[in-house]
Amino acid sequence: MRATTIHGPRDIRVSDVADPTITAPTDAIVKVVAGCICGSDLWPYRGENDITPGDTIGHECVGIVEEVGADVRSFRPGDFVVVPFDHCDNTCPHCLAGAQNACVNLGFTASGQAEYTRVSQAEGSLVKTDGVPDAGLLPSVLTISDVMPTGWHAAVSAGVREGGTAVVVGDGAVGLCGVLAASVLGAEKIVSMSRHAPRQEIARKFGATHVVAERGDEGVEAIMEITGGVGADAVLECVGTDQAIRTAFDIARPGSTVGFVGVPHGVRLPVRKMFAKNIGLAGGMAPTRRYMPELLGLVLAGTIEPGLVFDSTLPLAEVADGYRAMDERRAIKVLVEP
Amino acid sequence: MRATTIHGPRDIRVSDVADPTITAPTDAIVKVVAGCICGSDLWPYRGENDITPGDTIGHECVGIVEEVGADVRSFRPGDFVVVPFDHCDNTCPHCLAGAQNACVNLGFTASGQAEYTRVSQAEGSLVKTDGVPDAGLLPSVLTISDVMPTGWHAAVSAGVREGGTAVVVGDGAVGLCGVLAASVLGAEKIVSMSRHAPRQEIARKFGATHVVAERGDEGVEAIMEITGGVGADAVLECVGTDQAIRTAFDIARPGSTVGFVGVPHGVRLPVRKMFAKNIGLAGGMAPTRRYMPELLGLVLAGTIEPGLVFDSTLPLAEVADGYRAMDERRAIKVLVEP
Repeated sequence: MRATTIHGPRDIRVSDVADPTITAPTDAIVKVVAGCICGSDLWPYRGENDITPGDTIGHECVGIVEEVGADVRSFRPGDFVVVPFDHCDNTCPHCLAGAQNACVNLGFTASGQAEYTRVSQAEGSLVKTDGVPDAGLLPSVLTISDVMPTGWHAAVSAGVREGGTAVVVGDGAVGLCGVLAASVLGAEKIVSMSRHAPRQEIARKFGATHVVAERGDEGVEAIMEITGGVGADAVLECVGTDQAIRTAFDIARPGSTVGFVGVPHGVRLPVRKMFAKNIGLAGGMAPTRRYMPELLGLVLAGTIEPGLVFDSTLPLAEVADGYRAMDERRAIKVLVEP
Repeated sequence: MRATTIHGPRDIRVSDVADPTITAPTDAIVKVVAGCICGSDLWPYRGENDITPGDTIGHECVGIVEEVGADVRSFRPGDFVVVPFDHCDNTCPHCLAGAQNACVNLGFTASGQAEYTRVSQAEGSLVKTDGVPDAGLLPSVLTISDVMPTGWHAAVSAGVREGGTAVVVGDGAVGLCGVLAASVLGAEKIVSMSRHAPRQEIARKFGATHVVAERGDEGVEAIMEITGGVGADAVLECVGTDQAIRTAFDIARPGSTVGFVGVPHGVRLPVRKMFAKNIGLAGGMAPTRRYMPELLGLVLAGTIEPGLVFDSTLPLAEVADGYRAMDERRAIKVLVEP
């Protein structure tokens, strides 16, 4: 099949690789209808993560079941499914406690930007829709494979509550979905920390009541002004850098929680500040499957339209352009059609 | 007055110092009936914290109000009061949100091992009893000034719930109070990580169902066995060292929270593990005043007897012996009578 592969820093290609096959009775093979590029794909793209040259890349997709293993009973060829980036059996003690991200049979999508992908633990991982969603809904349905549940997880982990103030650090697609999540969860003031006009615009559409373009000390000052000097009731950290984490803990009110979903790179947590102010940290890799039914329901009902984070659609052959556009922040999120 | 002073590593003396006086209308002066030595006093004692030679030391006490400032309306000379180690107005936005540890008028007891102490924000900080408690109750009432609310805060922050498994890292007086808190909050399995027989005995009295004497990898293995390989539902970190924090995150189940109350020294939080497993961190310096009414009520009703953590009582003149005994782990916690 044709698949996106990574060969080194900023070296993304489309290559012929072996088709994925059923390797365990719990597997399914999905023919990808739409995949996309994740902000976290940019870490290896920029050479910040180790890679094996030639490996496939991409972990977000939706598609049509092509083949299932013997133990997969709820899905059959032809079903349209959302594939969570982290696969789980949804029956182990961690899954039952809502920590599907740590399933004892944890797996990951390895070729979401490709023609086909293998899903381990298909029975516990996949969620299907009645038929293929309309073209207009497809981008929003695609966000359910990662970016929307991840933004949602930031909001849930930060304890966003009705009537409170939520601040979202980061204006990538995850941060924007965090704004949307805070809005659905009833926050009264929602601040998007963003300095890019197109992202600010989506943040407003998603429910942001305030936009703060400043960073560092000035950004902190702006948040303190908005919150009457108290700090934010909930902070969603959607970047993963040390600077973003610092900002998050600087603007969180004492006793609150920073919900973090940006994969941490070079982060040193400010443990003494956390201790003195009682600012907690919660979240991490999203337990995607936990949130999928609810979020897919909101999408199909038209209540939320997270697909607005896609501002570019490219055929698989041009996927390298998509990486370049996201790396240079010319695109927010790129949908890839195999 | 006579007061405990610190002059350098392992140099504790009893000195004549100026009597504390009312310096603000919100102050009160309390004649100390009983004070005690805190595990956190051992950090400066051991030279791990900077000190100013000659400074008074000690932040836990109960006593009788001697004098009040003009703005203190609910207390008058003769009242028996518990003095929280962290003083708060109990009216600012942080206090109202339950984060009294970060009150905008935060203060601290500075001479709890002395004849008198000043309480800033007396109106918001103090809690009084009907008369002087019986001698038998006094040690337990004294714990309400710090150690019991701190253990309680660890349990609350870790999200201890009825029927769950709580593991307490640390068998100091705070850790033991954490065991007691987990018991009151209804945990079904309560594990005290302790290798000192007298502490294990108190832990059992406080409700520990299991004692794990092993540390490091062996300690983690023991907890995994007790929890059926899943990990603890709630972990109370009551030490503050890097090793204790590591253990806490190694034994916490995915999706759970480590409640930490040990003042962190040289701690580096395992952010990537926290992210991958979704193990949160919450807690910090206790919002003592928040818990005082409830905990004092439990003590006065005879429901809990946290005073059992005191295994030694010394006159003020011998306070240095108390520090030595706690430093060498010959005493769990020392009560000091001025």
